[in-house]
Amino acid sequence: MTQFTTRPQPIPVQQPTPMPVGRYTPFIPVDVPDRTWPTKRIDKAPRWLSTDLRDGNQALIDPMTPTRKMRMFELLVGMGYKEIEVGFPSASQTDFDFVRQLIEGDKIPDDVTISVLTQAREDLISRTAESLIGANRATIHMYNATAELFRNVVFRISEAECVDLATRGTELVMKYADQHLRDVAFGYEYSPEIFTQTPTEFAVEVCNRVADVWQPGEGREIIFNLPATVERSTPNTYADQIEYFIRNVRNRQHVAVSLHPHNDRGTAVAAAELGQMAGADRVEGCLFGHGERTGNVDLVTLALNLYTQGVDPQIDLSDIDHVRRTVEYCTGLPVHPRHPYAGDLVYTAFSGSHQDAIKKGLEHLERVAEEAGRAVGEMPWEAPYLPIDPHDVGRTYEAVIRVNSQSGKGGMAYLMKNEFKMDLPRRLQIEFSRVVQSHTDQEGGEVTSQQIYQIFDAEYLSEKPWALKAAGSTSSNGQFHVTATVDGPTRHDVEVEGEGNGPVSAFVDALTNEGAHVRVLDYTEHALDAGGDAKAAAYVECEIGEGDDAVVLWGVGIDPSITSASMKAILSALNRSAR
Amino acid sequence: MTQFTTRPQPIPVQQPTPMPVGRYTPFIPVDVPDRTWPTKRIDKAPRWLSTDLRDGNQALIDPMTPTRKMRMFELLVGMGYKEIEVGFPSASQTDFDFVRQLIEGDKIPDDVTISVLTQAREDLISRTAESLIGANRATIHMYNATAELFRNVVFRISEAECVDLATRGTELVMKYADQHLRDVAFGYEYSPEIFTQTPTEFAVEVCNRVADVWQPGEGREIIFNLPATVERSTPNTYADQIEYFIRNVRNRQHVAVSLHPHNDRGTAVAAAELGQMAGADRVEGCLFGHGERTGNVDLVTLALNLYTQGVDPQIDLSDIDHVRRTVEYCTGLPVHPRHPYAGDLVYTAFSGSHQDAIKKGLEHLERVAEEAGRAVGEMPWEAPYLPIDPHDVGRTYEAVIRVNSQSGKGGMAYLMKNEFKMDLPRRLQIEFSRVVQSHTDQEGGEVTSQQIYQIFDAEYLSEKPWALKAAGSTSSNGQFHVTATVDGPTRHDVEVEGEGNGPVSAFVDALTNEGAHVRVLDYTEHALDAGGDAKAAAYVECEIGEGDDAVVLWGVGIDPSITSASMKAILSALNRSAR
Repeated sequence: MTQFTTRPQPIPVQQPTPMPVGRYTPFIPVDVPDRTWPTKRIDKAPRWLSTDLRDGNQALIDPMTPTRKMRMFELLVGMGYKEIEVGFPSASQTDFDFVRQLIEGDKIPDDVTISVLTQAREDLISRTAESLIGANRATIHMYNATAELFRNVVFRISEAECVDLATRGTELVMKYADQHLRDVAFGYEYSPEIFTQTPTEFAVEVCNRVADVWQPGEGREIIFNLPATVERSTPNTYADQIEYFIRNVRNRQHVAVSLHPHNDRGTAVAAAELGQMAGADRVEGCLFGHGERTGNVDLVTLALNLYTQGVDPQIDLSDIDHVRRTVEYCTGLPVHPRHPYAGDLVYTAFSGSHQDAIKKGLEHLERVAEEAGRAVGEMPWEAPYLPIDPHDVGRTYEAVIRVNSQSGKGGMAYLMKNEFKMDLPRRLQIEFSRVVQSHTDQEGGEVTSQQIYQIFDAEYLSEKPWALKAAGSTSSNGQFHVTATVDGPTRHDVEVEGEGNGPVSAFVDALTNEGAHVRVLDYTEHALDAGGDAKAAAYVECEIGEGDDAVVLWGVGIDPSITSASMKAILSALNRSAR
Repeated sequence: MTQFTTRPQPIPVQQPTPMPVGRYTPFIPVDVPDRTWPTKRIDKAPRWLSTDLRDGNQALIDPMTPTRKMRMFELLVGMGYKEIEVGFPSASQTDFDFVRQLIEGDKIPDDVTISVLTQAREDLISRTAESLIGANRATIHMYNATAELFRNVVFRISEAECVDLATRGTELVMKYADQHLRDVAFGYEYSPEIFTQTPTEFAVEVCNRVADVWQPGEGREIIFNLPATVERSTPNTYADQIEYFIRNVRNRQHVAVSLHPHNDRGTAVAAAELGQMAGADRVEGCLFGHGERTGNVDLVTLALNLYTQGVDPQIDLSDIDHVRRTVEYCTGLPVHPRHPYAGDLVYTAFSGSHQDAIKKGLEHLERVAEEAGRAVGEMPWEAPYLPIDPHDVGRTYEAVIRVNSQSGKGGMAYLMKNEFKMDLPRRLQIEFSRVVQSHTDQEGGEVTSQQIYQIFDAEYLSEKPWALKAAGSTSSNGQFHVTATVDGPTRHDVEVEGEGNGPVSAFVDALTNEGAHVRVLDYTEHALDAGGDAKAAAYVECEIGEGDDAVVLWGVGIDPSITSASMKAILSALNRSAR
């Protein structure tokens, strides 16, 4: 090894930000030193509640019209959601009317439970119960503020007054349910708001006191929803809070512990997952993460994350583009191009090494499937850079592949093979990728598969100056004789003749007489289509010229005749050397 | 308590998805039962590496032009990034040229280290070293595939051959650095690709063998970058892998352990955070999470997550809109409206209860600041639903607040006060919110602050049929005498007179003679501007009419004279009762 002589590199030193960081203090999590969730794995889907029509809708620039709400409701039912929060009827006439429309229009399948949100005030609870008259299954979801900041600054109430509000509110829910909802299979959900900013032991106490009123039991579950209405810390602290809550809540077997994370720190999905590992039963969120500010946790990502682990999400996402289109229509907001599983770019591999690996991975999968006599879609999925088979959600890898100046041979070769059936030999892939790159480096931007084919066509298939006009060959005793009519650089319609141990070498011999020096280094050929009268593609690697001036170039020929295709390939290489 | 009589509610049952979930198997994490990271807290910023110009750029539909690359580089330097990956010069002439442009154009500050990526092949390494000639501080970042899927399917090499590639590549980096880069403060980064899908013990082995070649020591750090190039599992498993790696890598004091998460499962931010808790020193990512497919981890969110915990991110985000605009310009891709800290909607509270709480929280903060004799911007930040003071990143809460049919009184009251200086009494807020809601429920959509003012103006300030044309008052011994000229429902320019123990009651008395029955229930007034000739706003709650026909309505008056403002407020209430 040579002596290593570069200068030592100092460790980089970053500078303080000019922002007033001293205003902020760290979040203090509940202390659960014997936590068990980090060793757990999620092995079944949680119960899902979609709050697209409540938390999602209330945070839209343009809230959904009744028509869009109905579209959203039908989408959710079609995907398999069985618990759907449909509004805040005591806060908005629009919401009240929509709940009535669902019930009176008989839009709710028998196995779907609708729920509605309310604050813990008698007039609102009474109005809320009225909105549900005639429903088959319905849940009232009541919340009151238990977080210290809210108690001290917003509402100015003591812990005891806070517990009173919750228990009195629960009594009122029962009173008005009794009054209006005798025929409804009725459920109750309570949220200590904001759970994550409430001392966890106090949140447990409030919930236990609420349960004392509701008296959960068989057929009388209580849902305790534990909102991270504002995400304040790393997701492990939420999991700690959930584990603590579950250890201390009474009558656990009749309690559904529900998560409701928001995404202020970009970790709502993680919070929901670690919260499930900590034992939660249920997750509330929105499709693609709509909801106040940064949004609720994204139910699509959560479901497909389970899917990639072989856990049935119990939600149908087999046509993710349909789901996406509907949500974009209803919300008026786009799904980002990089959104997990659904964005425009997420099944695209831009870099050459990624494309190359994907190509090999997919070919391997096809081979393995063929050996097993099964379809690729039935085989266990494992492919480089693709955590999910795009086909499973109605997408394709091909449809969105893009080629730009960063892309190497793999992507182009994959496109050439899949869209144009041309299976380029490896060294031709390398050569062609340089050809494409010389175009993209000059012009910038993405190259579509059509443009790639145009570049390929101009480079390899243009018949100038050499062109094959006619050709014939005969053989005897393993010796081939070729006659052909060609255009050349100087003359047109020239008849040439040559001999060799195959038609290719005979054609090369014939060309020598016209002054072309070609040596064939490599040669492959394949049919372009299935069937008897298929065209063939021939690829030949040629050394052209002599001595120091010799260059190595690939040529490509396409023709119904295998022989003519290979002759054209040789002329293709000659044409490239002439340019 | 009444007998509770609703029907029992069955637990909802979800159905299996029709998707082929059986194709997928769970990710098997490394086993670290004695993990310590869940008890840790991040108390300092990591070293940041921006790969916006490499991983970010390579995944753009339209890769950056040289001009845009330079803009991005200047932005990154200006924000305080000290390690910047600037390209893959052996894979693209464009990238090579950009690195030369940075070096020859003297664009790189002395304390900034640029790095470039290469595969472990001699021709590429040699070309990579050439690209760095003349740099002050530079790092070559080499990777090779260590993941089983890649070894077995893509490259078909054994573990031993894989180690050979890595160590031989490292020797070549040293050889060409020696040859070309004697004057460069030179560093080395190695990535076992894809770390997360490599058996962790093998990743440690490869890295230890690479270190045997590089011989890390004082001034000769080695960076081991541990990419989650594809996110495959919950973020806790990444943290386990990082903790395992750190325990087993040799010569830890001269190793920088670097994280490189992608966002395929939407948990890249969490993975980076839990990875830091597990002991990592350094994080690679992109602004707003660009990069292959779902993108690299978002450096903006990571930095501001630290900030909210009082940890200096050492990155300047005091003008987040400038950062966002520049990145949108350079990448041609938008930042989503719900993107944490930077999206259009993230400092907006749509729902009435949220708006109300924020209003009270901000008022509380102002009070506390005033008592302390300090500016709000110097006070510890704590406000409902806002994890960060929008002003700290150059945003405002006011600027983006929106009012729609879900919004309650708080948001409107806040807008009226902050944009129009009108401090509506609480019961007037409730009344006005119903007025606004009757508009938004009919028309749908967002209501701007200007529209709110128009609604307010039409409802409370239109002087029809009653209008005050002129007024005067005299007082003696606490008794007021008022004379006024008013337009009434039937007559114009009517002179009225009345007596009372204040000008308001005297005016009410005067109106009785014109057939108007008004009783004042509540009354407040405030100046609209600072200064002696400021206008005043008066708010009166009136009972209008008699007996069963009486209605309670607020009226509002604005006038330079306090007395006239209150008279106008009474006429405002009369006008509303007449409509």
